[in-house]
Amino acid sequence: MFRTHTNGELTLKNINENVTLSGWVQTIRDKGFMMWIDLRDRYGITQLVFDQDRSSAELIEEAKKLGREFVIQIEGKVIERASKNPNILTGEIEILVEKLIVLNESQLPPFTIEDETDGGEELRMKYRYLDIRRNPVKDKLIFRHKMAQKVRNYLSDQSFIEVETPVLIKSTPEGARDFVVPSRMNPGQFYALPQSPQTFKQLLMIGGMDRYFQIVKCFRDEDLRADRQPEFTQIDCEMAFVEQEDVLEIFEGMTATLLKDITGKDFGKFPRMTFADAMRKYGNDKPDIRFGMEFVEVKDLVKGKDFKIFDDAELVVGINVEGAADYTRKQIDELIDWVKRPQIGASGMIWVKYQNDGVITSSVNKFYNEDDLKKIAGKFGAKEGDLILLMSGNENKVRTQLSALRMELGNRLGLRKGDEFAPLWVIDFPLLEWDEETGRFHAMHHPFTSPKPEDIHLLETDPGKARANAYDLILNGNEIGGGSVRIFDKDLQAKMFNLLGFTKEDAEAQFGFLMNAFQYGAPPHAGLALGFDRLVAILDGNEVIRDYIAFPKNNSGRDVMIDAPAAIAEEQLDELELKLKLKD
Amino acid sequence: MFRTHTNGELTLKNINENVTLSGWVQTIRDKGFMMWIDLRDRYGITQLVFDQDRSSAELIEEAKKLGREFVIQIEGKVIERASKNPNILTGEIEILVEKLIVLNESQLPPFTIEDETDGGEELRMKYRYLDIRRNPVKDKLIFRHKMAQKVRNYLSDQSFIEVETPVLIKSTPEGARDFVVPSRMNPGQFYALPQSPQTFKQLLMIGGMDRYFQIVKCFRDEDLRADRQPEFTQIDCEMAFVEQEDVLEIFEGMTATLLKDITGKDFGKFPRMTFADAMRKYGNDKPDIRFGMEFVEVKDLVKGKDFKIFDDAELVVGINVEGAADYTRKQIDELIDWVKRPQIGASGMIWVKYQNDGVITSSVNKFYNEDDLKKIAGKFGAKEGDLILLMSGNENKVRTQLSALRMELGNRLGLRKGDEFAPLWVIDFPLLEWDEETGRFHAMHHPFTSPKPEDIHLLETDPGKARANAYDLILNGNEIGGGSVRIFDKDLQAKMFNLLGFTKEDAEAQFGFLMNAFQYGAPPHAGLALGFDRLVAILDGNEVIRDYIAFPKNNSGRDVMIDAPAAIAEEQLDELELKLKLKD
Repeated sequence: MFRTHTNGELTLKNINENVTLSGWVQTIRDKGFMMWIDLRDRYGITQLVFDQDRSSAELIEEAKKLGREFVIQIEGKVIERASKNPNILTGEIEILVEKLIVLNESQLPPFTIEDETDGGEELRMKYRYLDIRRNPVKDKLIFRHKMAQKVRNYLSDQSFIEVETPVLIKSTPEGARDFVVPSRMNPGQFYALPQSPQTFKQLLMIGGMDRYFQIVKCFRDEDLRADRQPEFTQIDCEMAFVEQEDVLEIFEGMTATLLKDITGKDFGKFPRMTFADAMRKYGNDKPDIRFGMEFVEVKDLVKGKDFKIFDDAELVVGINVEGAADYTRKQIDELIDWVKRPQIGASGMIWVKYQNDGVITSSVNKFYNEDDLKKIAGKFGAKEGDLILLMSGNENKVRTQLSALRMELGNRLGLRKGDEFAPLWVIDFPLLEWDEETGRFHAMHHPFTSPKPEDIHLLETDPGKARANAYDLILNGNEIGGGSVRIFDKDLQAKMFNLLGFTKEDAEAQFGFLMNAFQYGAPPHAGLALGFDRLVAILDGNEVIRDYIAFPKNNSGRDVMIDAPAAIAEEQLDELELKLKLKD
Repeated sequence: MFRTHTNGELTLKNINENVTLSGWVQTIRDKGFMMWIDLRDRYGITQLVFDQDRSSAELIEEAKKLGREFVIQIEGKVIERASKNPNILTGEIEILVEKLIVLNESQLPPFTIEDETDGGEELRMKYRYLDIRRNPVKDKLIFRHKMAQKVRNYLSDQSFIEVETPVLIKSTPEGARDFVVPSRMNPGQFYALPQSPQTFKQLLMIGGMDRYFQIVKCFRDEDLRADRQPEFTQIDCEMAFVEQEDVLEIFEGMTATLLKDITGKDFGKFPRMTFADAMRKYGNDKPDIRFGMEFVEVKDLVKGKDFKIFDDAELVVGINVEGAADYTRKQIDELIDWVKRPQIGASGMIWVKYQNDGVITSSVNKFYNEDDLKKIAGKFGAKEGDLILLMSGNENKVRTQLSALRMELGNRLGLRKGDEFAPLWVIDFPLLEWDEETGRFHAMHHPFTSPKPEDIHLLETDPGKARANAYDLILNGNEIGGGSVRIFDKDLQAKMFNLLGFTKEDAEAQFGFLMNAFQYGAPPHAGLALGFDRLVAILDGNEVIRDYIAFPKNNSGRDVMIDAPAAIAEEQLDELELKLKLKD
């Protein structure tokens, strides 16, 4: 037996007990006549003591040979500490060691195994197994586990059945790029890894499973952006005989349960906002409503004053930054530079200051007198000490730019607190979006999303105006989930594929099995999928999902620890009847 | 709202309530003046009634247009049934329908949606979504979900953390064939899909995660045998600072919890048997101990009687089939033919009958007198009415053949009851097995398995004799799990790789990251993996795993419902810088 207790459980209650402990040597303090070692495992740290007066010379000799991260087993007696440490679970006791066994030695680790480490990102990824020994990483993985358990228990209690859908499926050109898997038994043919179990969950509804969920790996072969992973985890759900309202209720309940568990607070009903309102008020379909700075449109107030930029603009819109009137000229110029960066792409920004002394001034005093500015300030509800920032131009572009500025200010002003949570439903998304590049409509959510019944007639006349029964769950400015009521009628589904530019043959080849299934009694159904990696990160007050993945890949899709992907043997390629083009 | 209740919950308590129900039309009985419809969903069946006296003519008209598997929604009043059906949950009531909405029509399904269907295997797989509507399939998927939940809750309660390991990993030529995934971002390189998360779970132990589990998809590109799937699900576990005994205890506890839940019985400590004993007593390392027929070796009793076949045999071994002395000559001949089939490959079989009248006779009366036969019968503990079957030849072969016969007789005699459970640990497996074909040792479990400390010296002198700290969990004659104590010392691991014929370079290229990790304080660790598909099937009294998989593949690795694998677009191949050999 390697241990009678873990390193996180001994207290004064155990005084005088003989115990066996195992773990890693975290720190060694050698005072010559006495020596202390912090012994670490997943559960905590226990202080070991070696004492010239009470320990044998051989034992102290052995202890002196230990190094950081050595794996040891000790036997000893629990004694009360002279100087207690209230910060750790075992801080009232220490172990007077009587026997020491080195289970495994360790080379000096390439970075320190401490909460604050000296190791850079690359190094820590290469030695991820050492990184995982550190509390901040270990705790995130444990947090993830707990959230997964809570989700599963909540959904199981709501009669959801977790069904495993296949990983080796079929490639569909729609959407992002698939990872493919050559089939040796069917040469020249390929499986694809699922981007989501979408069609399978719909088939499960047609199969009468009624309520399905799965916490499941999904795959997307995209050019990776920062914090995008080629494999990611989804909480995937589907319900039959439901309307949008039923889905919202269930997953509001689920999210509130997780939030209550973390914060102790009841979140009640989540607010809802239409897509149109979200765009108008926040320039963004996933607004962070932990803070205000709602958009205010002022075209009617600013036009006709010879300020050509505003006169020509499709939209003049701004935000009121409370208490920012004391920003220096330099600070404001820096903000203007920030919105002019190519990533944001604004041409400029106008400011209006409502000074603490009651004076209102602006960067366009030439065109607007104090009375004009007062009216503007009035529309924003600005008060003394506030700073109004105005942007103008093309409606869609300027909203996106101002939204970026709003989020940036939210961060700078500390308004985006990790331990504050503001969930929100965004509903009534457009069904379709026009893609300039391909000159056709794309499904905003996916091709299986149902239009609102009252908008179906628009599919014939003005498809771009049709709204969908689609909804996103937003938390702190991040989309953590999205879903829709599905089409369950073969003819409507065929019409959708047609609108999306599929030929009848393409639709049949790719989704024939689903269309076919619709003919055998498909029930009304709807669902939702939540990005589990992101959900967990945000619930833990963080936005970097990589930290919540045990073995993440880097931005080139590589696992630098195991060095994958890698070349494979020629015989493997032969068996798959494949050739590398490189080698031609 | 599509329903106020499901079809499995209304009882006499709900009499006179107005309810809304939705579901599928299971059966229609039309008596002209009255009409009954069984409405089905996942939760049960509710009887609907349309009555000339109480329902409008229009309503009855509409109802007459319904067909099997139509999806409908009804409103009506709960009334007491005249003739109650005690076999279903809602058997005391029926619904007098007041309003009927057809949510979706259905074509006539290609097979009947009944517990006993007229659909063949192929057809049901093609329309798997209809097959899932049938109780026997639906119930198996729900059972699987419940078992997964219980496993997760048990292990979580035991401080195990579920950690998701990556699906896109690195190919290793050792073991079965990998599925590979070409990397577009790293042309000419491939990921592999994991055959198991073996190295990752060991790295998690080195990372201090202490107790890990995962219910996880694994992949093997093997030529499929009946009931083998290219993707399968494993309960994968690993523990640090443990010995074999600790692992056995935890997973005995887990299995007993599942068994208790199913049978209501306490299973206590599971019996244990060494590999050597299992082979000697049952000719098999996964014996079904629900029934006896243990092997008895009788070489010492039968030799020297001029029966050359026995005299020349390395081993003469038999089983006593209780109560089978009344088998006719024809029945016995059929058994002899059965063991002579090429799949079994025996050259023959000798029988000894202990007749009900006390007379003992045999198929070798020429060589053995009644006294000889009595001695044999005595060694078997046979009594009047029993039939002894003897086989002889090469030790390993004859054990395998007799084991097959024993299992066949177990099936024929109804001794292998689905609702009886006999768990068993088989321990002390050999570390290595000699492979005639390649002329080298293979790891019996896998290359990371630790030899028993007391057998390590044999690695130098007689490696084939070394036993491993490896163990299998057997349930009803099926291996449901297997595991081992792992090597955690770099030098011992290097020695193992060497024994298995790896060059230093190969070992480094394939497992360098693990060997490297061993240098930074690897703790002692051990683990187990259970085949979840098989475990679930056996716990449900079944042995066909395909029934417990929502969307299984056929024996050519094809999903006949979605028709995967399939050809992919030329552009996809181009992006991957791959060419099909076929097209050269």
